[in-house]
Amino acid sequence: MIIQFKAATSKSLIQDFCERQRQAGVVVYQSAQHVALIGLKEVTLTAAEQTGVDSMTTDEPSYVLSSRLFQPENTIIQLPHSTIGGEQFTMMAGPCSVESAEHILAMAKVAKEGGATLLRGGAYKPRTSPYSFQGMGEAGLKALRQAADATGMDVITEVMDETHVALIAQYTDVFQIGARNMQNFSLLKAVGQTNIPVALKRGLAATVDDLLNAAEYIAANGNHQIMLLERGIRTFDNQYTRNTFDLNAVPVLQKLSHYPVVVDPSHATGEWDLVTPMARAGVATGASGMMVEIHDHPEAAFSDGPQALKPATYLEMCRQIWAIDQLMRSW
Amino acid sequence: MIIQFKAATSKSLIQDFCERQRQAGVVVYQSAQHVALIGLKEVTLTAAEQTGVDSMTTDEPSYVLSSRLFQPENTIIQLPHSTIGGEQFTMMAGPCSVESAEHILAMAKVAKEGGATLLRGGAYKPRTSPYSFQGMGEAGLKALRQAADATGMDVITEVMDETHVALIAQYTDVFQIGARNMQNFSLLKAVGQTNIPVALKRGLAATVDDLLNAAEYIAANGNHQIMLLERGIRTFDNQYTRNTFDLNAVPVLQKLSHYPVVVDPSHATGEWDLVTPMARAGVATGASGMMVEIHDHPEAAFSDGPQALKPATYLEMCRQIWAIDQLMRSW
Amino acid sequence: MIIQFKAATSKSLIQDFCERQRQAGVVVYQSAQHVALIGLKEVTLTAAEQTGVDSMTTDEPSYVLSSRLFQPENTIIQLPHSTIGGEQFTMMAGPCSVESAEHILAMAKVAKEGGATLLRGGAYKPRTSPYSFQGMGEAGLKALRQAADATGMDVITEVMDETHVALIAQYTDVFQIGARNMQNFSLLKAVGQTNIPVALKRGLAATVDDLLNAAEYIAANGNHQIMLLERGIRTFDNQYTRNTFDLNAVPVLQKLSHYPVVVDPSHATGEWDLVTPMARAGVATGASGMMVEIHDHPEAAFSDGPQALKPATYLEMCRQIWAIDQLMRSW
Amino acid sequence: MIIQFKAATSKSLIQDFCERQRQAGVVVYQSAQHVALIGLKEVTLTAAEQTGVDSMTTDEPSYVLSSRLFQPENTIIQLPHSTIGGEQFTMMAGPCSVESAEHILAMAKVAKEGGATLLRGGAYKPRTSPYSFQGMGEAGLKALRQAADATGMDVITEVMDETHVALIAQYTDVFQIGARNMQNFSLLKAVGQTNIPVALKRGLAATVDDLLNAAEYIAANGNHQIMLLERGIRTFDNQYTRNTFDLNAVPVLQKLSHYPVVVDPSHATGEWDLVTPMARAGVATGASGMMVEIHDHPEAAFSDGPQALKPATYLEMCRQIWAIDQLMRSW
Repeated sequence: MIIQFKAATSKSLIQDFCERQRQAGVVVYQSAQHVALIGLKEVTLTAAEQTGVDSMTTDEPSYVLSSRLFQPENTIIQLPHSTIGGEQFTMMAGPCSVESAEHILAMAKVAKEGGATLLRGGAYKPRTSPYSFQGMGEAGLKALRQAADATGMDVITEVMDETHVALIAQYTDVFQIGARNMQNFSLLKAVGQTNIPVALKRGLAATVDDLLNAAEYIAANGNHQIMLLERGIRTFDNQYTRNTFDLNAVPVLQKLSHYPVVVDPSHATGEWDLVTPMARAGVATGASGMMVEIHDHPEAAFSDGPQALKPATYLEMCRQIWAIDQLMRSW
Repeated sequence: MIIQFKAATSKSLIQDFCERQRQAGVVVYQSAQHVALIGLKEVTLTAAEQTGVDSMTTDEPSYVLSSRLFQPENTIIQLPHSTIGGEQFTMMAGPCSVESAEHILAMAKVAKEGGATLLRGGAYKPRTSPYSFQGMGEAGLKALRQAADATGMDVITEVMDETHVALIAQYTDVFQIGARNMQNFSLLKAVGQTNIPVALKRGLAATVDDLLNAAEYIAANGNHQIMLLERGIRTFDNQYTRNTFDLNAVPVLQKLSHYPVVVDPSHATGEWDLVTPMARAGVATGASGMMVEIHDHPEAAFSDGPQALKPATYLEMCRQIWAIDQLMRSW
Repeated sequence: MIIQFKAATSKSLIQDFCERQRQAGVVVYQSAQHVALIGLKEVTLTAAEQTGVDSMTTDEPSYVLSSRLFQPENTIIQLPHSTIGGEQFTMMAGPCSVESAEHILAMAKVAKEGGATLLRGGAYKPRTSPYSFQGMGEAGLKALRQAADATGMDVITEVMDETHVALIAQYTDVFQIGARNMQNFSLLKAVGQTNIPVALKRGLAATVDDLLNAAEYIAANGNHQIMLLERGIRTFDNQYTRNTFDLNAVPVLQKLSHYPVVVDPSHATGEWDLVTPMARAGVATGASGMMVEIHDHPEAAFSDGPQALKPATYLEMCRQIWAIDQLMRSW
Repeated sequence: MIIQFKAATSKSLIQDFCERQRQAGVVVYQSAQHVALIGLKEVTLTAAEQTGVDSMTTDEPSYVLSSRLFQPENTIIQLPHSTIGGEQFTMMAGPCSVESAEHILAMAKVAKEGGATLLRGGAYKPRTSPYSFQGMGEAGLKALRQAADATGMDVITEVMDETHVALIAQYTDVFQIGARNMQNFSLLKAVGQTNIPVALKRGLAATVDDLLNAAEYIAANGNHQIMLLERGIRTFDNQYTRNTFDLNAVPVLQKLSHYPVVVDPSHATGEWDLVTPMARAGVATGASGMMVEIHDHPEAAFSDGPQALKPATYLEMCRQIWAIDQLMRSW
């Protein structure tokens, strides 16, 4: 159940109440005036507590911490060079894979020129086939970090495995959890025990509730710096696009949850010439940010070449995105 | 196969060539310099014809007339008060069902105020259950026509049945074919034999190719004034929305076909509070127009109340749509 | 609402009650002891009526007539040579299209040899492309009828269009409504006004409720001889099969409705070498019958050749089906 | 590429050829007369080798080791008490979660009575919500092992995490990889480095190719004892069932791959009263085995109660399954 105390209720009364519940063995979460008692359907209140209560519900979703019911205010993630979920739209760009120190640096400069403040690039790659390129590993992480530092950007990179969490934590500003690992609960728990922000990609067949419950695994382990990525779902409509871009999910997630929502038009389409219109659509929904793949020679990319934007196309796309963003923020 | 003749090739040479093929029993279509020979995989050309040919392909899609390969130029549909597919974005609005003469007139005024030039409203309603409201019939058509005329708008209304085509033709400027009838081939043929523009809605499980082949039924029967409506597809993701809005389909259709593409965020979401963000996304993709449902008392609407915008919400949405449209046309 | 009267309640009491409701403008349906009052949520009963009532519910589905709640007993469809929904499993076989009088007769003999009692064959074909073979029309109907008569079989053939209903009624024992027309409500009403049994195919994206509501259109127009066909749905899983065979729907439909359920492994797979295992699966679910496509020269078939069984394969499949059916009926 | 050598070709010639390729840096796999050279599109052969070659293809799937092209013979997995993929149909049964030593023993006895030779039960549970029961852990593994030993059964249990592989290996005969972890590539590699058979469940949105590529991760790491589980996919059709049981996948997988295919009607339906008909359908497709969940008090089960069969229902289901299996093996 979730109890909302009145604004005027004293902090110590709320603290004491929470403490009493914890001693009774209840898992208790608190967010300002809101207190969640996991699994409880009824609770005994003192007279003073009753007076302090504004409202109570036992109809909360299973993703309590992730819900707006528990935390009405937006989560804002602050990084050295970027803010996600605040007033600013946030651009994240880079190649699918880190391919070399020189290449990631060149791509970082392009990304930055378009207005990106986070540099993406995979050093450990989840590939459908075991015979495909699996990533540069730690050497890739180093190159990625150096390229970001050289250009004044933050790093976002994928972690596929709980045994890599400590290593990747040394290099990244944001952990990315890929779509295929969205319900790798061991991994979710592991990143939940760090204090590094997590970008959680929606799985190909994940409902909105599945995604928010996956976020809850991270939050319940103590890490509340979470952003949600819509990157396309799998449907019958796979003739001309890799996935179906479920932009409806953006306002739905914003209604249900306080975490920032980011869109990925690269994976959601899988075709570079569809990325710009769908990126425009993404910013127009009101998403907090975007992740996009770029490459100077897509035909030679180590992975996902067909969806990568060449630098000139990326820069033109960014021009359009920032103009729409500026327009929308003027309202 | 499709033959593209050079711009300099004389019209009479092309005409003679087409005539010879027709006399040989081939179904022949011509669009400026392009000639389609349905079902042929090879053809004999005179020396003069060979000189006149620019390129030939036997790799055309089954939806020949509807393809950009056959007609590179955009189809533009001109109505008394509206243009669809031209420089202007086109707004179509109105209630789901025509409910009375007074109500449709009131809604027409609201629609017009927001910038709509087409008035929508169903007089024959395809309803999942036989016990649901099935529409006002011809009385509804009359009221719809009168409301449009009184406000200087064009009419778009659904035809469910080939036996209604002649009747509805007396009242409407555009035939709407609903999603459930997208592959009602008898109906497609019937509207194809009129000269009234057709708005063809994509079926819930229709691929892009299915949609374009359905359009081809209309075109092959002589009616080339077709617009395509994306209104959401059916996927596993039906927890918080009625359908999945497949906006990827907008640029895909624009690439493959010359028909204008219109988006319907009302059916694509099924929830009024999601309509505005998804309408913004729709215009941002570069669609040619939008259809949206409005109602002054959604809770009392005869059909689809939950997705109807109240007038004030609609007008605010329109303000945003026109601003994004204006921005995009300034580039 | 649905009222179930006690077995001992006099027929005249029930009749009088129904009559009173009808005079009050209510749509009333009766099935033995069950009375459905469409749209009503409460009703006033006399003391005698109250005594006669066994149970009442306002929680009925929208497909009242089609529900087991209204009619607990199975619907059994009796044709001259076949029974569908009774003790016997029913085989329906034939080519996708009627191709000639000779061919359909040859196929009828094969079908019969395998134990089929209904002969299928399309004379009017719903084809994705307008340039594909559209069927032989009335000549095909005649040939189909003659082949069935010559072999002592019943005819099942597709009606695509309400304007064809009267014509096809002269030749067929069962109307087939195709998947693409499942929600062609004008057509459903038209066949609902005949007394010829209807085989209603599930649409590619139709939920179980959609299918039962479509059946309700037929029943509400007076025709209660309905069978439901599961023929595959459209999902992401279209790599090696044309559709996904949703066999779960067989026991689900049997639980919710009293109509016989028939499976179509030909369309559900689209590949002849998958038909036999899936036909075995179909009979094992407990379905009432099966429809399967056969052709002596699939590579030259006018339509759907890849899914047609050659005669020898068909006969071996039938041997297996009848053996499983016999085993299951022995329990 | 895959090279098939003639039956008469000497083993040493093939060995020498493989060795030469390995020394040239090629990843080489060999299965009797078949040699796969990963990533190669051409190869230089000596005259003797050319004479020894039966056929060559560069059109092999990415899941080379898992393909019938590379290994035409069925994989048969031999356990102390069970054979999977051989002449016998194999039953695997047990509760969703191990709940206590007493309970799992009681369930083992029921499972065994129905003819099961593998006992299932989860000690580590992948749950959508972090607040749901997460499994008994090692205590559960011990209880499961003891129950299996006491009844003369083999153990199958889920491993969610590569860090658990060594621990679970001490207790289980078969590792189960759950649907959500089907593309947890770190986990696949980890179980691939053991010599314990793996039951790989198909992901909710996994295509057949995705599943076989996931199996390839296990095989490429050295473990060839793999079985594939169809347990339902996620589609729009989720009104009355938890998933859509994609039985088409059984013959498709059997055609493409040599691994045994097992069906899971419990997860594929999610409703106990649908399990028996769908279990019959599963055995009738020709699958090699079945996994089913049982519980004596489903309403009190720690997880997935709604889909658990009570003992009497399970025993009746088994009676039917074995009868169909016996019939099919008599052909």
